[in-house]
Amino acid sequence: MLCKLMLPEIRELIENRDGTTLSEALDMWQPADIAELFADLSDADQKAAFRLLHGPQRTLIFEYLDRPTQHMLLESLEPADAGALFNDMSADDRTALLEELDEADREKHLQTLSAQQQAIARSLLHYPEDSVGRLMTPDFVAVRPNWTVEHVLEHVRRHGQDSESLNVVYVVDHDMHLIDDLRIRQILIAPVHITIERLMDSNYVALQATDLKRSAIEVFRRYDRTALPVLDEHHKLVGIVTIDDVLDVAEQAATEDAQKFGGLEALSEPYASTPLFTMVHKRATWLVILFLGELLTATVMGYFEHQLDQAVVLALFIPLIISSGGNSGSQAATLIVRALAVGEIRLVDWMKVFRREVISGSILGLLLGSIGFLRIATWSLFSDVYGEHWALVGMAVSLSLVAIVLWGSLIGSMLPFALKRLGLDPATSSAPFVATFVDVTGLLIYFSISIVVLGGTLLKN
Amino acid sequence: MLCKLMLPEIRELIENRDGTTLSEALDMWQPADIAELFADLSDADQKAAFRLLHGPQRTLIFEYLDRPTQHMLLESLEPADAGALFNDMSADDRTALLEELDEADREKHLQTLSAQQQAIARSLLHYPEDSVGRLMTPDFVAVRPNWTVEHVLEHVRRHGQDSESLNVVYVVDHDMHLIDDLRIRQILIAPVHITIERLMDSNYVALQATDLKRSAIEVFRRYDRTALPVLDEHHKLVGIVTIDDVLDVAEQAATEDAQKFGGLEALSEPYASTPLFTMVHKRATWLVILFLGELLTATVMGYFEHQLDQAVVLALFIPLIISSGGNSGSQAATLIVRALAVGEIRLVDWMKVFRREVISGSILGLLLGSIGFLRIATWSLFSDVYGEHWALVGMAVSLSLVAIVLWGSLIGSMLPFALKRLGLDPATSSAPFVATFVDVTGLLIYFSISIVVLGGTLLKN
Repeated sequence: MLCKLMLPEIRELIENRDGTTLSEALDMWQPADIAELFADLSDADQKAAFRLLHGPQRTLIFEYLDRPTQHMLLESLEPADAGALFNDMSADDRTALLEELDEADREKHLQTLSAQQQAIARSLLHYPEDSVGRLMTPDFVAVRPNWTVEHVLEHVRRHGQDSESLNVVYVVDHDMHLIDDLRIRQILIAPVHITIERLMDSNYVALQATDLKRSAIEVFRRYDRTALPVLDEHHKLVGIVTIDDVLDVAEQAATEDAQKFGGLEALSEPYASTPLFTMVHKRATWLVILFLGELLTATVMGYFEHQLDQAVVLALFIPLIISSGGNSGSQAATLIVRALAVGEIRLVDWMKVFRREVISGSILGLLLGSIGFLRIATWSLFSDVYGEHWALVGMAVSLSLVAIVLWGSLIGSMLPFALKRLGLDPATSSAPFVATFVDVTGLLIYFSISIVVLGGTLLKN
Repeated sequence: MLCKLMLPEIRELIENRDGTTLSEALDMWQPADIAELFADLSDADQKAAFRLLHGPQRTLIFEYLDRPTQHMLLESLEPADAGALFNDMSADDRTALLEELDEADREKHLQTLSAQQQAIARSLLHYPEDSVGRLMTPDFVAVRPNWTVEHVLEHVRRHGQDSESLNVVYVVDHDMHLIDDLRIRQILIAPVHITIERLMDSNYVALQATDLKRSAIEVFRRYDRTALPVLDEHHKLVGIVTIDDVLDVAEQAATEDAQKFGGLEALSEPYASTPLFTMVHKRATWLVILFLGELLTATVMGYFEHQLDQAVVLALFIPLIISSGGNSGSQAATLIVRALAVGEIRLVDWMKVFRREVISGSILGLLLGSIGFLRIATWSLFSDVYGEHWALVGMAVSLSLVAIVLWGSLIGSMLPFALKRLGLDPATSSAPFVATFVDVTGLLIYFSISIVVLGGTLLKN
């Protein structure tokens, strides 16, 4: 990785406007590392450095910069330079940049492209957001079944320069319909005079341009590929998607899942670059829904106000009891939501999970119930904070803990199944959602058990 | 994908022991799809089918089966057949299977390997668990700088058959020290008579065999590679890691992070195949820690028992108030933990986040506080459940909501920074952990505000 110690030298080269030495110095490093180094330069230095760089080096570094920096540098470039940059960018990176601009800016940049690149950019932007079409690049090598291996190698030599991935070449008919894919390895190790047809097995995996980006992750994982061909609705080969882009999609998807599970709408941008009010809005929606649900706890408590009046000691354990239910529910929901997401368990497995959770929930409940009883007993040895009926209070609390931890585990594990069955996203059963549900119902359990255990002693009627 | 409608035909072929037709039928499909189809066959049918298949086809399908099925089939094979299978497997998949066996079984299988494969398998198993060494395969193409392009292509033609990835070839010196990597594309498009040296830029990215698996994800993402070379401590090239294996590591890492965030120790195996008591143990640890923390709520409540006695109405809103703090804390923690994990924000950004959260938390608090007051006011119009001082009660509750939502947002967002600063995993500040912390402190806030607002009316002294 690029040593930060080089920063002063880099700054000096920028100050002296020494583009040649700067370009040579940066050439020794990976574009990804140079992009990170850029982040430590002032905006003015970044702009100056960028004006000093040229051609492929400039484009390559640009593709690794973060979005805000890209926008800043674009605006600082002469229109002709910005146009050249856009022309040289790989089609998929360009789409990712263009799709975030507003209509007018996007059109302005599109106009600077060559006729060919403009047609490519427009056709990619034509696909829906979040679709595989937006991820793909039309830079692939397509060959015909009647070509010889020698002809293919010659073709690759001529046209392979711009291809995103040369691991695989695609065999198409005269109308660009995909017939097969061949690993370059198969071609390299084949005798040079045989035709491609003889290497084909007509067995390939492809994505549809209108597929969801997220669905591509699963296909890459399943078939262990580094690049996949993309077909349009007429089964024509229109591009390829490479796995490095899919790795980014997977990371983005994991972030969205985590956010849903944390009880908020998924942010579409990084935390730091999401406008404050967008973020508040995304958090407020769920927070208010959960709050409205949680208001039911006040209703339930109001219903038992008479009991609380008689035995205020009952109130002391309410936070303890409902949070234990919430925590066990959150654990169970986490396990099941994730296992459903990666396909480890399926909808039909719900009964098996239910049985497991009955056992786990009971054991965990007994564990917490015992600790709870011990705590109440110990405190009562040294004080009378829990009154003369401390043993009955301890009994009510620990029985409630057993019941509520079991209840939390069952709700937390079954809710994701129920949501999936209804065609909703199981991740909606977030930790806060499960906790809220268990809070309300948990209070009912606690008061019911208390009335039975303490009836006739602490609770008169 | 392989149509389930074919299952009856497949079953018939297995029953008739018609290996030739079965092999031809399956040859039309992807190994990943055949592996999924296997899951729908009975154990007996799977074993029978597997005995009917031979050579590379058997090995290829085997590599896509899940672990329990692999073990079952291995045990049903003749020792010689099992040995042949192990010999043919790619080295990384073989390591993954061997590392899960106990000492004796592993040794038994190692003995069946050819001398060469045995040495490879042992050297890979020699690297620590969770290290890059366990992911790598020694099947790569290495060339020398003085070779011509023609010589390299000839070498690839001869030795490329077993290579995992031919996207990249590696340039090494006489001692296998890595000097450079070259994309096969660069070689294919170069004039055939120049030497490799002329194509080199001595600028490459490599992993260390002892690096953590998880760290490889970041390197692949950063440099957009499909395969990376792996070096030993002497800087010698010992293998390559391909991105398909890293995609699996990333998925596993996301699962572990989700589990930590859900408040339990990460399971090392899928939910369904984790033994019940292992799972209970992993859940119990955190559940008990959280419970011990939550016991403090009973202490805090005991301290305010006198106030509760005077105004039992205060108890009614406790679940509402503490859960609102917990939910806003869980939202904030989710955002920050994830943003830190993917590197969107860094430790130094804590002040920026703090300022953002002060604003977001205040707005969200005011929102919930207003709804809370409205609810109490509305109920009081139609009943006297909240008594004559309902307006003051409403005031105390809504002020507490503002304070606690703000407090939850600050704790949830700052705790991950604090943990990271201390060298701990920020994901430890899980939703339940933040909720527990906010529960205890939130009660203090609620009672303090109530004493101020209700002092002299509901609360006499």
